[in-house]
Amino acid sequence: MAIAAARLKNMHLPEGFQAGATRAGIKPSGKLDLALLFGEVPLRWAYVATTNRAAAPCVLRDRDLYEQGSLLRALVVNAGNANAATGERGPGDNLRMAASAAERLGVPVETVLTASTGVIGVPLPVERIAFALPDLELGSDLQRFAEAIMTTDTRPKLAEASLPGGARVVGVAKGSGMIHPNMATMFAFLLTDADIPERALRRRWPEVIARTFNQVTVDGDTSTNDMAVLLSSGLKEVPDADSFWDAVETVARSLARQIAADGEGATKLITVRVRGAASDEEARIAARAVAGSPLWKAAVYGNDPNWGRVLAALGYSGARFHPERARIALQGFLLYDGAPLEYDAAACSRAMRKSEVIVEVDLSLGEGRGEAWGCDLTEGYVKINAEYTT
Amino acid sequence: MAIAAARLKNMHLPEGFQAGATRAGIKPSGKLDLALLFGEVPLRWAYVATTNRAAAPCVLRDRDLYEQGSLLRALVVNAGNANAATGERGPGDNLRMAASAAERLGVPVETVLTASTGVIGVPLPVERIAFALPDLELGSDLQRFAEAIMTTDTRPKLAEASLPGGARVVGVAKGSGMIHPNMATMFAFLLTDADIPERALRRRWPEVIARTFNQVTVDGDTSTNDMAVLLSSGLKEVPDADSFWDAVETVARSLARQIAADGEGATKLITVRVRGAASDEEARIAARAVAGSPLWKAAVYGNDPNWGRVLAALGYSGARFHPERARIALQGFLLYDGAPLEYDAAACSRAMRKSEVIVEVDLSLGEGRGEAWGCDLTEGYVKINAEYTT
Repeated sequence: MAIAAARLKNMHLPEGFQAGATRAGIKPSGKLDLALLFGEVPLRWAYVATTNRAAAPCVLRDRDLYEQGSLLRALVVNAGNANAATGERGPGDNLRMAASAAERLGVPVETVLTASTGVIGVPLPVERIAFALPDLELGSDLQRFAEAIMTTDTRPKLAEASLPGGARVVGVAKGSGMIHPNMATMFAFLLTDADIPERALRRRWPEVIARTFNQVTVDGDTSTNDMAVLLSSGLKEVPDADSFWDAVETVARSLARQIAADGEGATKLITVRVRGAASDEEARIAARAVAGSPLWKAAVYGNDPNWGRVLAALGYSGARFHPERARIALQGFLLYDGAPLEYDAAACSRAMRKSEVIVEVDLSLGEGRGEAWGCDLTEGYVKINAEYTT
Repeated sequence: MAIAAARLKNMHLPEGFQAGATRAGIKPSGKLDLALLFGEVPLRWAYVATTNRAAAPCVLRDRDLYEQGSLLRALVVNAGNANAATGERGPGDNLRMAASAAERLGVPVETVLTASTGVIGVPLPVERIAFALPDLELGSDLQRFAEAIMTTDTRPKLAEASLPGGARVVGVAKGSGMIHPNMATMFAFLLTDADIPERALRRRWPEVIARTFNQVTVDGDTSTNDMAVLLSSGLKEVPDADSFWDAVETVARSLARQIAADGEGATKLITVRVRGAASDEEARIAARAVAGSPLWKAAVYGNDPNWGRVLAALGYSGARFHPERARIALQGFLLYDGAPLEYDAAACSRAMRKSEVIVEVDLSLGEGRGEAWGCDLTEGYVKINAEYTT
């Protein structure tokens, strides 16, 4: 079985991987902004990216590589500039970034994945990337990599799980605004040395994402650059596929929660658990609607147990249910059971003054279960996004 | 032709209507909160209400009346309490409200429409409504009616248009939070004395709504109680149906813009015009995505011409287009034409310091056109909604 994921610092990489990061001068702050991952052996991979029609050149090129089925040797990531909506020069700049990383590592350019995140519509300063890459040092931990891919994140996001026999799954992610189902301004890279066939990786990775990263919502915006990638060096045997996928889901779920908790301006993680839906998919849809409702998010910020907003969000989610049979609990207080219940509003409000607010919903219709994560809506979100570029 | 709608005070009613309002003690503020509309003759009507599965008893009963095809004599509206998610007593309280109005006016209860708006999940203080109705005075203007239906609105919303021959269309609306396509916490009542067959009213009213009220978005939440109703006394002849529908659309569009401009915490109206889409419907979808993007709304608040967020919203809207052929203009500044253009960012930012910010998009794909309205996202929105009930 997988052990519980944890937020670790200086997390060491699975076998067959090296990573590093440097300052290329893309972020105006001068912080780490260029990250490189190297596979000592060819890496099997599985890839899911944004559905946005204005997808960035990195996403378009990565998708082509994925369709061609080539194994990977490297992943190069920059933060501070998304190289999206940059017109005709965008694809060329993106290829130049891949080529610079390929040269640094001595691998073919078609084995190098690219990922860019940051401001949209400003040409990528690719010369700075090309200049910085030769001196980028690789090592055995992910900490600097995790810091370099951050944009408005306030902390790096890392998680890991181990399998019997020593194989490991290690994950790193970024994202805090423009976060929504179908991938938002979010990167997630999961690395493993588990020996799993690439066909299995490709088939099951989207299923994990449906239950984890696609259940995170911060603001309803989905972006041009998001991707979630699972990379395997295949150097360690695993006892069985199930324990491997348990480990992958544990890590993905931990990263999803970390992303939601670090939503722009957030003071609280909102976890929504729905059961009794007609299907798991409808449960996830219902949970997402609640986690994403601006009115409910604002109420959570104000410690206001205004469960009517939860019911209203369930109502417009598209999930089937009958309000007269639904039940809603908040921080353990049952507030609605087909009709409003008497409860101690002051005590419930006090119970909301936690870093995590848990909403439990029973639609009393079927066996479907699902979870979603969001965060409260605060003045901080507005401030961050009103002042981003100018 | 219809004359332009205007925000008028003390707007007098079309022929065949009386209206009034009083204080029933439902709003904690003690303001006007109970409104009554009376038809001196039986009223033809057309009705569109929320798609929310947790629709309130007033919506469920109104829908039944609409399906039965009965003519109306009255509409009774309260603000301060939505009578939604109130369990088994909800429908009975709603019927009691209709019956009290019927008694006050001496008309059958099945000719009385009800509408409630306000907090969800708190039993309706229907005794106060029954107590207040007998003394509610009716008159010939809409001003007090418009004030009584307000919740977090900062101003009443009224509009009118006149037809050759003297027939008129007068509209009143409320709504500022929980506003989203498919009807949000929004009421719109359009009253006319134009002699139009009820079948025509029923057929074309949803088409007007698709271009007006369903193109307003404040926060992505849709509510349990919304409705838009068109009522006709039929006392005046109209020269032709087209000029009547022009007048209806002019009034509906004015009210839609007033609702968006008065969005909770808003300092600016955002108007998004899309052309060149594959169809009018796709143009409306694209416009709505931009008007509803929290990131773009926050940028507008900060006078930040961050057009990348417009492109990203177009990208996830679902409307078809090729980013390399799209064009985006903001307050008349062309910012993107398949690639970023050079522009004076400081001048464009200054141009955004207006009460209305206009985004124009050409998708360069087809002939589809559409418009949507929203408002900026401010700290005020968060404050209002974090402190609503407790």
